[in-house]
Amino acid sequence: MSNKTISGNYFEDFEIGQILNHATPRTITEGDVSLYTALYGSRFALQSADSFAIDCGLQAAPVDDLLVFHIVFGKTVPDVSLNAVANLGYANVQFVAPVYPGDTVMTQSEVIGLKENSNGKTGVVYVRSVGVNQVGEIVLDYVRWVMVNKKDHDAPAPDTVIPDLPDRVDPSSFYIPDDLDFSGFDPVLGGSPHGYDNYEVGEKIDHVDGMTIEEAEHMMATRLYQNTAKVHFNQHMMAGDRFGRRLIYGGHIISLARALSFNGLGNASLVAAINGGSHTAPTFAGHTIYAWSEILEKSGIPGRTDMGALRVRTLATKDQSCDAFPDKDDDGNRDPAVVLDLDYWVILPKLEK
Amino acid sequence: MSNKTISGNYFEDFEIGQILNHATPRTITEGDVSLYTALYGSRFALQSADSFAIDCGLQAAPVDDLLVFHIVFGKTVPDVSLNAVANLGYANVQFVAPVYPGDTVMTQSEVIGLKENSNGKTGVVYVRSVGVNQVGEIVLDYVRWVMVNKKDHDAPAPDTVIPDLPDRVDPSSFYIPDDLDFSGFDPVLGGSPHGYDNYEVGEKIDHVDGMTIEEAEHMMATRLYQNTAKVHFNQHMMAGDRFGRRLIYGGHIISLARALSFNGLGNASLVAAINGGSHTAPTFAGHTIYAWSEILEKSGIPGRTDMGALRVRTLATKDQSCDAFPDKDDDGNRDPAVVLDLDYWVILPKLEK
Amino acid sequence: MSNKTISGNYFEDFEIGQILNHATPRTITEGDVSLYTALYGSRFALQSADSFAIDCGLQAAPVDDLLVFHIVFGKTVPDVSLNAVANLGYANVQFVAPVYPGDTVMTQSEVIGLKENSNGKTGVVYVRSVGVNQVGEIVLDYVRWVMVNKKDHDAPAPDTVIPDLPDRVDPSSFYIPDDLDFSGFDPVLGGSPHGYDNYEVGEKIDHVDGMTIEEAEHMMATRLYQNTAKVHFNQHMMAGDRFGRRLIYGGHIISLARALSFNGLGNASLVAAINGGSHTAPTFAGHTIYAWSEILEKSGIPGRTDMGALRVRTLATKDQSCDAFPDKDDDGNRDPAVVLDLDYWVILPKLEK
Repeated sequence: MSNKTISGNYFEDFEIGQILNHATPRTITEGDVSLYTALYGSRFALQSADSFAIDCGLQAAPVDDLLVFHIVFGKTVPDVSLNAVANLGYANVQFVAPVYPGDTVMTQSEVIGLKENSNGKTGVVYVRSVGVNQVGEIVLDYVRWVMVNKKDHDAPAPDTVIPDLPDRVDPSSFYIPDDLDFSGFDPVLGGSPHGYDNYEVGEKIDHVDGMTIEEAEHMMATRLYQNTAKVHFNQHMMAGDRFGRRLIYGGHIISLARALSFNGLGNASLVAAINGGSHTAPTFAGHTIYAWSEILEKSGIPGRTDMGALRVRTLATKDQSCDAFPDKDDDGNRDPAVVLDLDYWVILPKLEK
Repeated sequence: MSNKTISGNYFEDFEIGQILNHATPRTITEGDVSLYTALYGSRFALQSADSFAIDCGLQAAPVDDLLVFHIVFGKTVPDVSLNAVANLGYANVQFVAPVYPGDTVMTQSEVIGLKENSNGKTGVVYVRSVGVNQVGEIVLDYVRWVMVNKKDHDAPAPDTVIPDLPDRVDPSSFYIPDDLDFSGFDPVLGGSPHGYDNYEVGEKIDHVDGMTIEEAEHMMATRLYQNTAKVHFNQHMMAGDRFGRRLIYGGHIISLARALSFNGLGNASLVAAINGGSHTAPTFAGHTIYAWSEILEKSGIPGRTDMGALRVRTLATKDQSCDAFPDKDDDGNRDPAVVLDLDYWVILPKLEK
Repeated sequence: MSNKTISGNYFEDFEIGQILNHATPRTITEGDVSLYTALYGSRFALQSADSFAIDCGLQAAPVDDLLVFHIVFGKTVPDVSLNAVANLGYANVQFVAPVYPGDTVMTQSEVIGLKENSNGKTGVVYVRSVGVNQVGEIVLDYVRWVMVNKKDHDAPAPDTVIPDLPDRVDPSSFYIPDDLDFSGFDPVLGGSPHGYDNYEVGEKIDHVDGMTIEEAEHMMATRLYQNTAKVHFNQHMMAGDRFGRRLIYGGHIISLARALSFNGLGNASLVAAINGGSHTAPTFAGHTIYAWSEILEKSGIPGRTDMGALRVRTLATKDQSCDAFPDKDDDGNRDPAVVLDLDYWVILPKLEK
């Protein structure tokens, strides 16, 4: 017999300050970019065309921010969340150096918070993870927290440490590439006449289109990210689960919602930061995803006159169109069709000169 | 509320001479080529191997003509056919400069014909579209016409203009790359002993093989082309449609038929032009596609002794093999299994010296 | 009418010493690598990251050995096994020069054995196939044998020739790239603390995870390899077959099992050779594949102190976890859940200095 198999960390295996160097560095290539397009149909011009990116001062079309997120995130699963009961949230997600095809990313995490639950069977683990490229630059920096099982229920509870997390990333801390220049941004090629100045706080946008998810699609996506969470892949096991189905990786819904948001936010060229997000209901193959967005906040960016930031809340629904902007009712109960509620910052050109 | 969402053009929004600059330029990469192979299983040597293409005088394996077509075409959908009732046809489709991985294409269209239907609710729009690469060379030039809804039924009818379209592209106008040289074409690596001289006008070829289509496949393909036609993606919406199913993009069937045609036309290395084509019945996931071809015409190409052109009519069927060459009956009624009838020119080497 | 279609070779078409130059050379690209990751979720660091491969002395991340195998193998199908009744086995499979994205492979085979079956309707054909790159280096060398139909049952039986095939590839004949150096192998990034010295002969490893297969996945994989075996693609035809289903390409199961084996054999960075293998039961879409491995043998490699070779037997099952190591019972009857039994050599770093 053997004990070569990775069984993941349990709550009692984590301690404050612990550093986790995650396995399997990953070179991101044009192949990954094509698959991302095939899986979500994203149409943001900056990521779609080298020529457009070069006209915006970059060396080539950067890799979609969320593709970077999924790959950096995927590496943490075997060490952080293999024994997780639930992914509770993320905060302070900042996209730092742009990633280009050919770059290699790896991920390191630090345990920054621990809180055992009163039942003594589970606890919450907070980790700060950073994705780093082949020359040591940070490409992504974020905090997430998960509820993890204890293996030994008699293991003593650690001192409770809950990190101080910002409600929102402040635009003064955005990492905008120095060479990025939106002063000549072409909104015709961008696919929308609307720049930063055209949006108003409180504005709601129905993204109209719907996209049905197939099993092969979400599994190919999740494997592309080398995310190993079993619940996404193993129907034989999940048949005995309460839903009887494979669960779709929450990040797959985020990417679908972002791609759908092109219709209404076509020039929202970059995701600068994610302030927080909730996966509010499970999604399964066969569901059709719709999305709508609300503009929460507008902000200039220090030192930049060619662009501004919109803080956007995007909600995704399953099997329900978003023309009525489904959200919470007066009692605060969510519309059961809502599966994602994401709060993030996007960068748009200023088109009014 | 917001009006940021693209709702597409209605019939009354078009006028003769109008120029439409379509959004989202697209760099075509090796990733797209791999996906194309995975989706259709195409085996034409020229597009499959750099070494083979170099031996034929090219700099590298060119991108499959139909992949270029789908990407150039996809860009026109949001502006031309988002409110279309039907795609009626295309004509004078000419492949011009070859596309190599790394090239970026964008599309521009001009409205060249308009005819309101007698019901006053719809009209036919003719557009000439050109795909252009990053250095301004035309890569594809074609005309298509679609029936589009009017939004305002009281909008006045435009003057009727119907463009003069050729029944066939003449071989004297083919764009054959200057550096392409088939004088040393290797038919063993090409996969067929048959060159231009081995085919006869009137010859019929059953391509034998069948390929079943899955939902994930046609959706990944259509998203790869950044084609946004809702009918292909949204099962929640289509459940209420007359078929109750997502429709498969017609171009997906063209690519399947072309890939199947390898078995019988293995050395038909390039598509020079498409003379016309009809999608004669809808196709859904689960259908198995077969194909057969008839040689309509043979032609030399001015200035070339190493190659010739075959005008081919390829028909694709669903769930019916093509050993009996299903077509029209004596009364001109099409076999209901036929889903595609495509008339095009392919280039083959002359193997008899 | 036409006889342009390839109908493949029948048993009587083969003769000893016959050379088959297979069609469609193929440039393997980063796009293929990404699709391979998306289809199987493989996480071996050497193939995943250029930086890791460079730290191991290579020029870049090499293409996964099994992806090379599938592409080289796929080319032989039209000439060798289009009329096959069964794939009986392979032997002496040796991976020679590494393949990098951008390399082009083609395949040549020689008939090295023939034996007509006593029924006079079929016979066994043995071929040695070599995959060669664009500069003439062998990348893969293997023998397989298949049972092929006779077309003309009255055709005379050839003299029986059965090649002498080794039970196992000897480690002294492994082709290890000269520049490969595992002396600084990083097991943290590799994903497992276990090197060559940590495994024992007789050790059994349950790879724990399960992966469900969808129709779109195995068809995309098999088309990516340009493998044309009809049984994988044509549901319309297979509906009338004894199983009523499309069969999954055996190589798809091999790649799934290898990817699953990461959990327990994470540093098994290269497949040096395949000694033999059996596809012991058919697999269909919807099946969940699990795997377990047994260490059969350990061996040093002549001239190398930084690495060693493990001879591994990996079994894959369908819809049954492998915690009980399903195999043969005392009477030698296989557990019916087992679909693959593969005997091969992998290379691991020596981590104990």
